[in-house]
Amino acid sequence: MRCSEPGHRALVAIHASRGRVAELGSLGVNPNGGMKMTQVRVESFTISLDGYGAGPDQGVNNPLGVGGDALHDWIISTRAWRQMHGKEGGARGIDDDFAARGVKNVGAWILGRNMFGPIRGPWPDMNWKGWWGDDPPYHVPVFILTHHARPPIQMEGNTTFHFVTVGIHEALDQARKAADGMDVRIGGGPTTIQQYLRASLIDELHVAFAPVLLGGGERLFERVDLRALGYECVQFVGSEKATHVVLRRQAQ
Amino acid sequence: MRCSEPGHRALVAIHASRGRVAELGSLGVNPNGGMKMTQVRVESFTISLDGYGAGPDQGVNNPLGVGGDALHDWIISTRAWRQMHGKEGGARGIDDDFAARGVKNVGAWILGRNMFGPIRGPWPDMNWKGWWGDDPPYHVPVFILTHHARPPIQMEGNTTFHFVTVGIHEALDQARKAADGMDVRIGGGPTTIQQYLRASLIDELHVAFAPVLLGGGERLFERVDLRALGYECVQFVGSEKATHVVLRRQAQ
Repeated sequence: MRCSEPGHRALVAIHASRGRVAELGSLGVNPNGGMKMTQVRVESFTISLDGYGAGPDQGVNNPLGVGGDALHDWIISTRAWRQMHGKEGGARGIDDDFAARGVKNVGAWILGRNMFGPIRGPWPDMNWKGWWGDDPPYHVPVFILTHHARPPIQMEGNTTFHFVTVGIHEALDQARKAADGMDVRIGGGPTTIQQYLRASLIDELHVAFAPVLLGGGERLFERVDLRALGYECVQFVGSEKATHVVLRRQAQ
Repeated sequence: MRCSEPGHRALVAIHASRGRVAELGSLGVNPNGGMKMTQVRVESFTISLDGYGAGPDQGVNNPLGVGGDALHDWIISTRAWRQMHGKEGGARGIDDDFAARGVKNVGAWILGRNMFGPIRGPWPDMNWKGWWGDDPPYHVPVFILTHHARPPIQMEGNTTFHFVTVGIHEALDQARKAADGMDVRIGGGPTTIQQYLRASLIDELHVAFAPVLLGGGERLFERVDLRALGYECVQFVGSEKATHVVLRRQAQ
């Protein structure tokens, strides 16, 4: 763990002295009072070495674009990811720590519509219910940004998809209420994350860099000046499969 | 060390079986014959987490743009870097291994003009001789891409600056001849590297990711599709201060 911004060595030092478990456990908890304080977080968002969060030519056969699957090699073998998907076993270690923190204390999700499915424009019918089958790996309310209204869908395992047509602020308000003191996770894709970044609404981002080149697609850090928005790197640690970075927005 | 492209696990395995020193020593040597074969390499080129090789507002007081100095925290304490600059001591380890490989078997350099200095347009006089004082850390011929002719400058310590006005191919031809069987290193900046990448003239790039946000400036991987050009990640390893990545162009 290491950060380049001298002003935040203190923060890193605090994290370090608490140890790994305490550090992960501190997410979403107000250290001054023990009262829960909703944080807006991006977690386990993986980009290629050339900066893309998804490859080119996304579609029903390539949810993450051509070559995009390779982004997630680091997470799919982890214990936490397997648990989220109802499987046993899996690897522990740095990658697992980050996969685990990604679902800890998350009370609601927000997704861009393209992350929900490949359909563009008006819904042709109500058949598409996401990429994830009958029991999606969310298990909490999920708010989907779209220009095309649609009734909510109740899925198995406590996941409900809500469709929000009135913009990112309203979606966040609804997600905060649904999260009821827990945190809101912005799932992606890159355009959705950028909108929330530019509105200074994201408290913390965990970004993983995977040893993959995608050549094209959607960049995560496009049309956004993270330095001007007050983000700083507060954690930097690598495994064999990914470099994990935590960016946190400092009080302005 | 690890790569995501199954087709190149073999290459990585070869590297791994040779061990670290042999791997670094193999650069520029034809493994089939032992004869030297000139490679064109980018080395120790550092980018921020948001992809910038230099910060905004480059100028005489900010050669690397605002905030850009922080990119090189990983290298300035290494033994190899200190040696290059006539100093003793320094840290060993992964960062030092990469700093050392960056100058190994380099017989000539190519620099974009903005890396040589802050002056744009015609040379007002012959006074500017680079950022580096009387004894620049090259110690070999350096070819500078410019639209404005200027006689060569012989510096101390065997560095000569040559000014090439006829384009990147001619500059590389001249650098190859000067390197006399050793390798040619493309120093930067990002625009110069991109021109050589697009012309498929770079064999290998070592890129370091530093835990820094620059917010703006010049991106390294802009206007270039590394996947289409045949580059693949053949090494991925991190220290506390940087993640080191080696990209190699595969035979097409």
